[in-house]
Amino acid sequence: MEKLHTFYYFLDLAGTFAFAISGATAARERGLDLFGICAIAFTVACGGGIIRDLCIGAVPPAGLTTWYYLATSLVAAVMTISLFPLVQKINRPVILFDAAGLSLFAVTGARKVLFFGHNAEVAVLLGVVTAVGGGIIRDILLNRIPVVLEKEIYASAAFLGALIVVAGNYFHWLTMDWLSVIGLVVCFLLRMLALRYHWNLPVFSNEKTGTEDKS
Amino acid sequence: MEKLHTFYYFLDLAGTFAFAISGATAARERGLDLFGICAIAFTVACGGGIIRDLCIGAVPPAGLTTWYYLATSLVAAVMTISLFPLVQKINRPVILFDAAGLSLFAVTGARKVLFFGHNAEVAVLLGVVTAVGGGIIRDILLNRIPVVLEKEIYASAAFLGALIVVAGNYFHWLTMDWLSVIGLVVCFLLRMLALRYHWNLPVFSNEKTGTEDKS
Amino acid sequence: MEKLHTFYYFLDLAGTFAFAISGATAARERGLDLFGICAIAFTVACGGGIIRDLCIGAVPPAGLTTWYYLATSLVAAVMTISLFPLVQKINRPVILFDAAGLSLFAVTGARKVLFFGHNAEVAVLLGVVTAVGGGIIRDILLNRIPVVLEKEIYASAAFLGALIVVAGNYFHWLTMDWLSVIGLVVCFLLRMLALRYHWNLPVFSNEKTGTEDKS
Repeated sequence: MEKLHTFYYFLDLAGTFAFAISGATAARERGLDLFGICAIAFTVACGGGIIRDLCIGAVPPAGLTTWYYLATSLVAAVMTISLFPLVQKINRPVILFDAAGLSLFAVTGARKVLFFGHNAEVAVLLGVVTAVGGGIIRDILLNRIPVVLEKEIYASAAFLGALIVVAGNYFHWLTMDWLSVIGLVVCFLLRMLALRYHWNLPVFSNEKTGTEDKS
Repeated sequence: MEKLHTFYYFLDLAGTFAFAISGATAARERGLDLFGICAIAFTVACGGGIIRDLCIGAVPPAGLTTWYYLATSLVAAVMTISLFPLVQKINRPVILFDAAGLSLFAVTGARKVLFFGHNAEVAVLLGVVTAVGGGIIRDILLNRIPVVLEKEIYASAAFLGALIVVAGNYFHWLTMDWLSVIGLVVCFLLRMLALRYHWNLPVFSNEKTGTEDKS
Repeated sequence: MEKLHTFYYFLDLAGTFAFAISGATAARERGLDLFGICAIAFTVACGGGIIRDLCIGAVPPAGLTTWYYLATSLVAAVMTISLFPLVQKINRPVILFDAAGLSLFAVTGARKVLFFGHNAEVAVLLGVVTAVGGGIIRDILLNRIPVVLEKEIYASAAFLGALIVVAGNYFHWLTMDWLSVIGLVVCFLLRMLALRYHWNLPVFSNEKTGTEDKS
């Protein structure tokens, strides 16, 4: 399991990096200043985990106490500022990292909640919050409707990953480490397939009935 | 008092349901996908209580640990999606439920804070937050100015309901159960009368002086 | 040091007042009602401290338990509503108070976190959050991109003030009271000079390369 933990650690940093890149890129496009870009990069990378930690009483949140999350976010922000053409070229790896970060944050988020002794519902909900919370805060700060609420299978993939870990643990299917690997792989594959084949959750247009605009 | 608690329980579910309907309806109108509609329905129903619980250290928040809040929100979201014409027809009961939820959340929110041993100011403020917090988060996520800050006697009714409970408890006017009933009825009536007669709190136009647009 | 504490107390109230004025003014310009103006005034004055207290587990947050923060915010809101021409005339003192509040909140925020026994990174980050958090919530509620992320040396000044206190304490340069005075003065001067000479942090335009609009 030693190798597995090294692997988790790498994924954790890669996910943090990818989330920070996505935040810094969005902030740069909106014309924010140096502080704004760094702040949004850090918020996207750590915001979901900070909300989770507040909800389970793990204060101060790990995102604030652990220096390498901040360092990784700042490196990503500086890269996005100074090497923007390079950042654009690594767009494909960044999407891969983002899917890896999503999967990992969902799984480790749910595990941390279970480890603190809370029930299955809290673990699944906060697993999803860990994975998508940062992106939602980013979109709130940049004054737009959070993209994860509008389209694409993104939060749903995180939900499935967290659910596998929590349900598997509840029914004693496998050891936690194996459940984590399965949750991670399922979430990652679902996200990549959704991107590849443009899968979306249904949207409910207002055209079905003529009376809907009244309310 | 047994009947009273059954009555509270019914009001709690009815309020949760009404808040979730209002969230799901707003999310559907903005074109959010299935996950987005469910997420906003749940957020409106439980967001205020979650902020209250974080502020008094009652972690994990009741909104995350209690399965029937989530279940009620999801039922409301699915109804809003699949039975939209029906949801529009029950617009009037939904407004009634919403006022009931507002009153109940303000009163029970303030009671929970007092029960945790905090002072009167915290109880009144967090009573209001419990009642209107979910709606404010809904409007932030949907990228508009929270409607409770702009017009109508809504938060003010919640404030009055919470104030009656807290002040009455402080000065030992009556038992907590009677105070709750009075706070609930006053808040509910004020809200319904405000809706019926279009009462609003004053807005301060910029036309009074010619110098105000400078700043 | 007795005089120093009286001085802090005055600065604390002056900063709260200035932050509340800035919130109430912005809310009034957006056409919010009486409740909305009071709510935003209070939020700007206390929002940053409330987030800090949630993150260090100091619940319920001081902003909710201490009556004079609420009272100061309401006085500022009522003044902004009824004496708007006067509020505009004291624009210069308000800017001074705002810089004083920024400096003081950054320094006392960082001190409180250290006092609760948390590490240097948490103290600096939450010092900045204490100082600028209220303004960020104000802009989120008023549906615009937070101004501190876009321009001016504001959060950066708070960062420097908090850093001086935390680094000085870590390396035992001076007593905490002297460090606080130095952090306060440096932050205040930097903010006033930035206002006077229109200093800004760099913004990274999209004109440097022709490929940036693709993503």
